[in-house]
Amino acid sequence: MSFSIRLATREDVKSIHDLIVELAVFEKEPDAVEITVEDLLNDGFGVDKKFVCFVAEQETKVVGIALVYSRYSTWKGSVLHLEDLIVSQSMRGTGLGTALLNEVVKYASRLKVKRVSWEVLDWNEPAIKFYEQKGANVMRDWDVVQLDEEGIKNYLNAI
Amino acid sequence: MSFSIRLATREDVKSIHDLIVELAVFEKEPDAVEITVEDLLNDGFGVDKKFVCFVAEQETKVVGIALVYSRYSTWKGSVLHLEDLIVSQSMRGTGLGTALLNEVVKYASRLKVKRVSWEVLDWNEPAIKFYEQKGANVMRDWDVVQLDEEGIKNYLNAI
Repeated sequence: MSFSIRLATREDVKSIHDLIVELAVFEKEPDAVEITVEDLLNDGFGVDKKFVCFVAEQETKVVGIALVYSRYSTWKGSVLHLEDLIVSQSMRGTGLGTALLNEVVKYASRLKVKRVSWEVLDWNEPAIKFYEQKGANVMRDWDVVQLDEEGIKNYLNAI
Repeated sequence: MSFSIRLATREDVKSIHDLIVELAVFEKEPDAVEITVEDLLNDGFGVDKKFVCFVAEQETKVVGIALVYSRYSTWKGSVLHLEDLIVSQSMRGTGLGTALLNEVVKYASRLKVKRVSWEVLDWNEPAIKFYEQKGANVMRDWDVVQLDEEGIKNYLNAI
């Protein structure tokens, strides 16, 4: 199958949102997606850009995305974070995920950042093996911690 | 012990760098700190601010920092990430870490973000217990993946 990868434009935002929702439905968390098409438009394509998105296109259909933004390491300075790499179900196993990851690493190299980071589920052995083969360091002893909206409220009520 | 917490200014950058180095030395990774005082000055206090830093002061000495920046969730939009919370060794066990975390959560609330995230070592049970008591969700099944500078080069050479 052939596809091309390019930077997303404002016209892709609806397709990007569709893929985000598709993945959330697949993960049985459809209600977790609070973000709207409008939010994505403002946050990614307005004056203050909060992310950069690559889209993979097959003919004229967006079938995958990789969404990245800068983070800041107190040891290395600016680094690039891959927040989401989504491949539409119809395109799984076609090499599209790898192609998108390639674009992200090329982009990191152009930005001259010293690191690309992302997160992986620790039981997702095929993904972990794939990343390690690519030279990434899966830091199994580092966990992600999140304090959500409700948690923020409760936290502040308790101090 | 008494201390006050405030937003960092350009004048604090040397002290912030000292604390970053102090922690790296404590973690036996002194050479990992590639960032310079100049970098911190440009990245945190220039036109394009890549982070916001809180400092804790005891008398006139900076004895702790909390460094945060925005990330972007494709489900929740802008979220706040706590990259580093450092308490000088002389001040461990004084409640300074909690006070800094309090400021970070208050700041998140002011920004109206839907999440604060950070990372923790999975064997650091006291820290995990502390965060969970505070209402945070320690996602033990999510690991951090990093492709470093060398890894980026090797990756690109292999495609």
